[in-house]
Amino acid sequence: MVRTATTHYFGAGPALLPTEVIKKAAEDLVEYQGCGLGLGEISHRSAPAVAVVNTTKSNIKQLLHVPDTHEIFFLQSGGTGEFSAVVYNLLASFAKKAGKKGKADYLVTGTWSQKAAEEAKRLGVDVNIVVNGKKASANGKYDFIPEPETWGPFGTADDTAYVYYCDNETVNGVEFSYVPIVPEGVELVADMSSNILSREVDVSKFGLIFAGVQKNIGIAGVAVVIIKKSLLDKPTDEELTALKIPLAPIVFDFPTVVKNNSLYNTLPIFNLHVVSLTTELLLKNGGLKAQELISNRKAEKLYAALDAAPSGVFNLLVEKKSRSRMNIVFTIIGEGKEQVFLNDAKAKGMTGLSGHRSVGGIRISNYNAVSEESVDLLIDWIKKFSS
Amino acid sequence: MVRTATTHYFGAGPALLPTEVIKKAAEDLVEYQGCGLGLGEISHRSAPAVAVVNTTKSNIKQLLHVPDTHEIFFLQSGGTGEFSAVVYNLLASFAKKAGKKGKADYLVTGTWSQKAAEEAKRLGVDVNIVVNGKKASANGKYDFIPEPETWGPFGTADDTAYVYYCDNETVNGVEFSYVPIVPEGVELVADMSSNILSREVDVSKFGLIFAGVQKNIGIAGVAVVIIKKSLLDKPTDEELTALKIPLAPIVFDFPTVVKNNSLYNTLPIFNLHVVSLTTELLLKNGGLKAQELISNRKAEKLYAALDAAPSGVFNLLVEKKSRSRMNIVFTIIGEGKEQVFLNDAKAKGMTGLSGHRSVGGIRISNYNAVSEESVDLLIDWIKKFSS
Repeated sequence: MVRTATTHYFGAGPALLPTEVIKKAAEDLVEYQGCGLGLGEISHRSAPAVAVVNTTKSNIKQLLHVPDTHEIFFLQSGGTGEFSAVVYNLLASFAKKAGKKGKADYLVTGTWSQKAAEEAKRLGVDVNIVVNGKKASANGKYDFIPEPETWGPFGTADDTAYVYYCDNETVNGVEFSYVPIVPEGVELVADMSSNILSREVDVSKFGLIFAGVQKNIGIAGVAVVIIKKSLLDKPTDEELTALKIPLAPIVFDFPTVVKNNSLYNTLPIFNLHVVSLTTELLLKNGGLKAQELISNRKAEKLYAALDAAPSGVFNLLVEKKSRSRMNIVFTIIGEGKEQVFLNDAKAKGMTGLSGHRSVGGIRISNYNAVSEESVDLLIDWIKKFSS
Repeated sequence: MVRTATTHYFGAGPALLPTEVIKKAAEDLVEYQGCGLGLGEISHRSAPAVAVVNTTKSNIKQLLHVPDTHEIFFLQSGGTGEFSAVVYNLLASFAKKAGKKGKADYLVTGTWSQKAAEEAKRLGVDVNIVVNGKKASANGKYDFIPEPETWGPFGTADDTAYVYYCDNETVNGVEFSYVPIVPEGVELVADMSSNILSREVDVSKFGLIFAGVQKNIGIAGVAVVIIKKSLLDKPTDEELTALKIPLAPIVFDFPTVVKNNSLYNTLPIFNLHVVSLTTELLLKNGGLKAQELISNRKAEKLYAALDAAPSGVFNLLVEKKSRSRMNIVFTIIGEGKEQVFLNDAKAKGMTGLSGHRSVGGIRISNYNAVSEESVDLLIDWIKKFSS
């Protein structure tokens, strides 16, 4: 099977995947390893399915150099499900350690961290907003990540279960270029849904990292979680209830999921297999050091082209230091100009460039699967449009 | 793409799907509607993705004659996730109506309804086990569905939010041949994960029906839910918390999901598309009236072959009136005989026949995609083995 049309796709997610991955996945959907059945049709506890789980874990462990202090597992979930799962599980870990219900600190730098903080509040967490990018912004928008010196105050290891942040904000186009420094003894939690495996990460700094896979490494249906093993210890359900800590639905109870090698309930093995294939390809192509160079180079030249345009053409929305490598957001000045930009881009085979429905404008998503060729074509169009 | 090997597969799930469905799905994974992208790579809010949601809803509405009093929606979930989701949502509906926390009645007739009841208890529900098939059984096993006259007592509409049962127990091979009659005003909830769309159902009798799709109608990753619309009304989160009713994680909050046409968070559209294709095929082939005839005929002849064997060969585990049409369970008498049966079946191209790891023995799963040809081949083998 081939793709009949050539598309240079810059959508924000679910997003483009490497064509060779998609083709292999399609073959394996029809028949896996010559067994007469496709990978979607076999038991999640059969040997080939368990091998998919173990291979994907191993690939991610190699790519991110995940230390033995941390465990990798998979859930039938995405980012929004993990907003809730973080609450249940990190409050339980803290209660095990401290014998009480912990608070939580949130760095709110865009739509997704805002939603995560709202969900924590909804579930009864005492949420401390350490920084709010929108309130700190001169424009009243999530258009930068305020300097760490302006944050605070954080909670303490004595009362706070975790500090939460979103490493890359897909809607607003801001990305952390560093790992936030948090008080000693407070666990750091990161949503890396939209930039996972696009660069190297020092996993040892994190209590928990999660990512819905459907932007950079897979099709929707699975979340990857990396957790510090010591956080898998929890009180009994009775103790949690007495402390007014909500219990996770069993499918989101991390200790249960880990104890069962991600197979407590039916994991969508076919969807995980796509992650297995993309991570295999990343390893083959030199790992995250190589991918990071490519991701950074593509982003840099896109921003360079936009910055080089005469003033009055584009309005780049995000402060330079906070610019996302993955989602490049801007507006085009002049009524109807954005539609011209989008229509002509489409005529040239470039799609997926509309901004998020909540903010409008243009958004170029620069995930791992977006080729240098696509980026160069778009840069040509940006130059032509702005000249 | 073709399957190189011919397999007659009787696995219990994730299970066989129609080859034409799998092939079409594989094509659509590579490229959907000539757009240059596969269906796993486009936004869940794009027009083609929304069309998949709407088409699947429409197909299921037609197949099950879902009345306008009921809503169909989809979740990134499976049966085990729904055990919890039922609790959150049905207690909320009841609290809206009655201003208090409701109890719940469970009919426990096998492993899955037992797990569902345990999850409800864990989440703080006052669970009333109306019937326990294992305790009622002379063998101490879930080997029959006790007669309704022996059940009870049920709760009342005044104190009980719902009555829960599992329509077909995959592990134990018992299936309801009727819809349980419950007290007026108490909502009936059914897990139909393993027999959904294998027969006609009078949806109007149910408050809620759910099904993980990976047995009869899809690959793992999605649950189908049909709910009485009046149950989508719920108190505020504050009211729920005051009543000690646990809040659903937002991805399992049915009113939120329905309000967003199943797209509040990222639904695995590719996985749902497989359901769209199987339901389209069912409609083409005459709907559930036709499918029910086929399912029943295949099950009847399998049981007939097993019953016709000389005594001392097979031990059919389930009382005749409670026999499942979908999962036919038995043991083979004599040491090592089961392994001979399985090995020789495999040599003849028949696989997936081992019983569930918790109960052992043999299990023949007879889902919609298991062809009459496969069934006839297996019957030949059963006859030969037992003669």
